[in-house]
Parts: sequence; structure tokens; C-alpha cells
Amino acid sequence: MKTYSYKKSAALFKRAARVIPCGIYGHFAPAPLVPATDYPYYAVRAKGSRFWDVDGNEFIDYMCAYGPVVLGHNDPKVDAAAMKQLKLGNCMTSPSSLMVELAEYLADMVTGADWAFFAKNGGDVTGYALMVARAATGRKKIILVGGGYHGVAAWAQGMGHPGVIDDDKSNILYVKWNDIDGFEKLVAENKGQIAGFMATPYHHPTFEDSEMPADGYWRKIEQICKKERIVLMVDDVRCGFRLDLKGSHAYFGFTPDLICFCKAIANGYPISALMGGEHMKTYAAKVFFTGSYWFSSVPMAAALATLKELKRINAPAVLRKQGKKLLDGLVGLAAAYGYDLKVSGEPCMPYLRITDDESLMLHQEWCGECTKRGAYFTSHHNWFITTAHTDQDIKKTLAIADDAFKVIKKRYGG
Amino acid sequence: MKTYSYKKSAALFKRAARVIPCGIYGHFAPAPLVPATDYPYYAVRAKGSRFWDVDGNEFIDYMCAYGPVVLGHNDPKVDAAAMKQLKLGNCMTSPSSLMVELAEYLADMVTGADWAFFAKNGGDVTGYALMVARAATGRKKIILVGGGYHGVAAWAQGMGHPGVIDDDKSNILYVKWNDIDGFEKLVAENKGQIAGFMATPYHHPTFEDSEMPADGYWRKIEQICKKERIVLMVDDVRCGFRLDLKGSHAYFGFTPDLICFCKAIANGYPISALMGGEHMKTYAAKVFFTGSYWFSSVPMAAALATLKELKRINAPAVLRKQGKKLLDGLVGLAAAYGYDLKVSGEPCMPYLRITDDESLMLHQEWCGECTKRGAYFTSHHNWFITTAHTDQDIKKTLAIADDAFKVIKKRYGG
Repeated sequence: MKTYSYKKSAALFKRAARVIPCGIYGHFAPAPLVPATDYPYYAVRAKGSRFWDVDGNEFIDYMCAYGPVVLGHNDPKVDAAAMKQLKLGNCMTSPSSLMVELAEYLADMVTGADWAFFAKNGGDVTGYALMVARAATGRKKIILVGGGYHGVAAWAQGMGHPGVIDDDKSNILYVKWNDIDGFEKLVAENKGQIAGFMATPYHHPTFEDSEMPADGYWRKIEQICKKERIVLMVDDVRCGFRLDLKGSHAYFGFTPDLICFCKAIANGYPISALMGGEHMKTYAAKVFFTGSYWFSSVPMAAALATLKELKRINAPAVLRKQGKKLLDGLVGLAAAYGYDLKVSGEPCMPYLRITDDESLMLHQEWCGECTKRGAYFTSHHNWFITTAHTDQDIKKTLAIADDAFKVIKKRYGG
Repeated sequence: MKTYSYKKSAALFKRAARVIPCGIYGHFAPAPLVPATDYPYYAVRAKGSRFWDVDGNEFIDYMCAYGPVVLGHNDPKVDAAAMKQLKLGNCMTSPSSLMVELAEYLADMVTGADWAFFAKNGGDVTGYALMVARAATGRKKIILVGGGYHGVAAWAQGMGHPGVIDDDKSNILYVKWNDIDGFEKLVAENKGQIAGFMATPYHHPTFEDSEMPADGYWRKIEQICKKERIVLMVDDVRCGFRLDLKGSHAYFGFTPDLICFCKAIANGYPISALMGGEHMKTYAAKVFFTGSYWFSSVPMAAALATLKELKRINAPAVLRKQGKKLLDGLVGLAAAYGYDLKVSGEPCMPYLRITDDESLMLHQEWCGECTKRGAYFTSHHNWFITTAHTDQDIKKTLAIADDAFKVIKKRYGG
């Protein structure tokens, strides 16, 4: 199988390194998690499950912009709704009626949520949620799960990260995922001081297997939070609308006080939402929170079109079905080559790891070999399936994965 | 002159109040700064200097989405560039080459800035600047100007605001605008502990007159910062590309270490930028900072088109000229009715106040009367002129203002 080369990507990156810190940031920096030998750095266009890079290479995309794309790139219905609104107006002095329609649609769709507030980033709404929890309780401390990701604000980053000072973290307490005893201990030690607990619906750290909530975990957490008047906040930025259109809390059977949505909400158009129960609304109203582009109507038009389409096609079922097909195929292939490919997390956003090499380097090499044959895989982060991933895509992906396993096997034997 | 009614706006707001905290947020909440009797809350479409609300009323827009719109709403060149890119791809797994082009274009255009980093909100890049300053100096404390606005993150909000805790503010020190002595005293009292100083190029608080930098202010601040190794950060979110395309620091003749841009950078498409000198680049690279939509190429295409058009037409000169025409006309009109209409700030983003009533209520009433006749003015915030505001717009605006002064005069006599 022919492998790709990335000459134009490399040339552009050389230019970028002069005028952009790291050349490229986020998931691609600082020590590139997606090495330039195996990965393209610049995309030209995207459609459905595919994107094309500056060197003309075609990829079946399993990262989907790290989550925002859920119906496939450039979904015709979503883009048509966005373009229709763009022609009327986007960033206007007042919002359009779409803001009301979208809030009503979401309040109707999401279990236990009566209102919505719109911003741009996932991190906008996790930060807003913290402020609302503090306004509601008059308390300072926040419990997070170690290894969880809630954005790049200093409070959400790791202690000791460059630019983060100890005072940013002085009210952040950590508990292990699924550790009810640890949570109860922390609450007892900080009796009456905990404003809120924020966690993802299931645990999906980077460089580590995903972990589902243990039986009864969320129900127990919910009980403790209610008893201790701790605001329960779900960061549904990554899972939201992928597991269940009613919210991932509905999927796992519990009711949070505040829910953070972003990513899949508008198929790539920039919008995020904080939602909550009626009892939190006055506190949300008290906190001053706004941004330059937050009334923009194009992302709201895109969000409405995305949510309606996700509902029409029952997207969570489609994502699960296609995800399972892909994963069953890959695990089977790996086994045929004598490798143990471990899958964790939900099939719509699985984390994969070849367990035979604890350093993860073998897994990284396999992902790289797949990518430079046209199936864009990463080793550090969960993947994403869209509803645009067809059986044909999966078939082609498995052929690529087969070839990549062959190369790895030949390289390392065993 | 016929005045507008806002029946549909009011009906929509009633629905909104059920599903959105405050019904509407930001500059419109909590106690509406733009009263529902005088102002529309929902826009349908916008074009050039105008927008139309849900009741079919037409407005000459002097708020321009509170700043992002600088070439007029739906500028054809900017929208064409955005739509062209939208058809190719927007939020893709990798950025497009536009990210490199835009960084190069900005580094070439902005004085003393060698690199650019792109995010979504103004508050993203002010927050990032703080982290970069702390990473660069290993220090904690930040000096801000009292009354300055740098976004809604807890560190940037006022002490005691709902959701803000004392620890959020424990490293934030305040100095008065134009107060060199106060700045020197603060620096001496916190010798070796100040990571950075952030301020807007000139002071433009809400509910207060704008203030220009005093002669030599910025040069002196720059000297002190250099001597004390304090990172000098300019929040050019509101003024940026309006006063001078080289950055407002070039307009006022000084060189900061970091510059925050947003608003006018892309004529309403959601993007912000942190820029800085070469000496800050390694520190910027060290701080982990990213977001779900930050690689999106549509706002980058819009930014390139906006900046090129601003340059082609020498936008700062156009804005100044049209601003001055409007302001001279309004001040003259006010005087004819016996009122002192005080203008402060730059003509492209003036703050106005009828000084005859210290409560500002008379001024609010006049702004409201103008708005419900079709010239959208606010009393609490500086206005914005775009390059799309024609002489015809200004003539019509002055006729509206005249009628509004007549109403106010009749109501209060004097």
C-alpha cells in the first residue's frame, strides 16, 4: 500500500514555526503528539468522513477536529442553515430569535435542564459553571477528578504547568474517578466548604484507558451532593449528544444541577452551552458573563440544524453501530497479528491501546502507519466516529489497519 | 417623527425569560441597560451601517455588536472569503494554511509583534497573556487599571461580584489610569513580584468618560516595566485596528511585550489573537492553551479579508473622518437646545454624555428617544463607527437626534 508524504505540510510548518509559538498548538504541541513524519499538519478541505491535506492526501478522519464534527464534515443541512443565516446577519448588536428557539429546543430535549446560556468555548461554560456554583453556595472549593479535562483556564490545568500559579489551584481538590470513599472523605474533611463537583460523564483522560462509571457511582454522587448542597456539574463537552440526545447524564441515569455542552452541538460551528435546572437559574443570572461574539446567530442556526438532524437519524444509535463495526474489526485484525488491541470508552469515541508495549510507542507507530495510508488515528486521545462514516469507510480503514499491522509485525517480529 | 414599537421583541423576550437566565445577557442584563420600551432585543438581518429588528424597524447601528463590526455588517468581500472557505471546510482536524498566512500577515502589519496565536474570545487571549507573563517572569502579581475591562474570567471581574471569590483576586493589584506615581509606588511595594501590567491603549470604562493617555504616560510605563522586568500587556480588543493598523500602541508610540486583539480583526467572525515580541515566544509556547474551534479556517479567511480591506481603504482615517462629522453635528445640535453633550475617547469609538444631568438618566432618555427613531445609541458604553457609515447615514442620524432633543427639551424644559 502506498504511503503518503507531507512535503507541503512540512514547508508550511517551517513558515509557521517563525510566526506562531510552537508552530502549531493544542493537541499538536509542544512535542508533537502527531509526528510530522506520519501526520499532515494542514488541511485543505473536508467532506463527510474525509479530509484532504495540502499535499493532496485523502484521509478517513477518526479525530473529527477532536470532537466538534458529528454528522461528518460540511453536512449539507447544517451548512445550508448556517449560510441562510449568514446572508441575513451573524454578529449583530442584538441576538436573533434563534437564541430563544435554540434555548427552547435544548430545554425540551435535555433531561432535567430548564434553561440554556450560550458562549463560544467549552472552557467558557465550565468556567461559568464554577462561578454559578460559587454564587449559589457562597462556598469556594471545587472537587475535580484527577486526569479529567475541563479546558485551559489556569484553574483547570495541572499544578506546576507553565503559567499556572499555586493560587489558581488553592480551591481545587482532586478525587480519583469512581472513588466514592475518597469523595466522601474529601467532603467530610471540607464540610460546608465545597461549592461544586465537576466531572465528565465517564472518565476519558489522554494517554490512558477510558473508564465507565461503576454501578451506582453517579446515583451515589448525586445523593451526597444533594445532602451536602454541593452543585453537581457535568462536563458533557466531549460526550454530549453522542451517547444520548437527552444528555449523557440521562444515559447514565442521574440528574446534575449544571451541564456543560460544546463540540457536537453544532457540527463544528463555534458555540457552547451551559444548561441547568430551574433551581440554578437565578444564580446563573447573577453571574456577569458575556463575550464579543456570543450573540452571533450563524452558530445558533447551525446548532438547531445539527440537533434536529441528530434527532431525526437517532445519531447515538448510528454512532454506536458504526463504532462497534470498526472496533470489532480492528480488535480481530490485531489478534490475527498476535497483538492485544484494547478498546475502552464508548464505541462512538473509543480510546485504543496496543497493550503489548507499555511505552505506547508501538501503538503510536501503528497509528502513524495507518494515518500515512489514509486512516487518521491518534494514540494519545480518544477517537471520534461520525454518522457519515459508512460501511465502505470502515472496510477501507480495516484494509489500511491490516497493512499497518503487517508493517509493525515485520519491523518488530514477535 | 414616528417612533418604533417593539411588540414582537417583547413577546420573544417573554419566551426567552423562561429558558435563558436574565432572558438576555451581557450588555443587556441584568437590569437592562437598554430598556425594552426604547430598544429592540432581537435582530433579523443587518447590512452595512444598518440592522432590522423582528418588528421590522430599521436602525442605523452605532453599537456594531459592541465592536466586532468595523467594515459594516455583512461586508461583501469578507463574507465572500468566509463562504469560499466554508464550502471547502471550517472546523477540520488540522488547521488550514490560512493560519500561517494570517500569522504572517499580522506579524508584518503590527509594530513590534513577531508572532500570533489564535483563539476565539478576547477573554481567551487576555487570560493567556496573564499565563504567559507569569511563565516568563516566575512571578504572580498582575497590575490592572481600575475600571478597565478585560473579559469575564473571575480574575478580570470586580471583587465581590457574584461567583468571584477573594482568591481569584488575591494577585490582582489596581492602579488608577494615568497615575504614574501610583504605578511606581505599587511596583516598589511589590518589588520583584509583579509579573505583568495589563491596560487598554486608552481608558474606556463604562458609565464614565473615556480618558486619553497623558503626555509621556506610555513611554514612562514602558521604561518602568523594562527596568523591573514586568511584562507589558496591551488589551487592544476594543481599539485594535480602529486607531492604527499597526496596533494602538503604534498610535500612542510605545512597544508592549504582548498585545491582545479581537473584535475588529474579522468583522464579526469569531477569532481573537495574542501577539508578542520574539523575546516572549518561547514563554508563549510553554503555556498549554487551546480550544475546540480554534483551528477553524472560516474566521481566519474572514480575518485576512478584513485586515486587507481595512488596509486598502485606510480604515482608521475613514473612521476618524466619519466619527468627527457625526460628533461635531451632535455636539452642535445639543448646544442649540442648551445641552452640553460631552464627547470623550477617539472619534471612531466615542463615549458621549449630556453633562447637564449627573444621574445620566437624561442622557439615557435621549439615547432611548434616538433609538426608537432609528439611530441606535446607548448611554453606558462607547459607540462604534464603521467604514460603512455614509454621510447620508450621518445626516439622517442628526435629524433623528434633533427630534429626540426636541422631545427631551419639551419633557424637562429648562
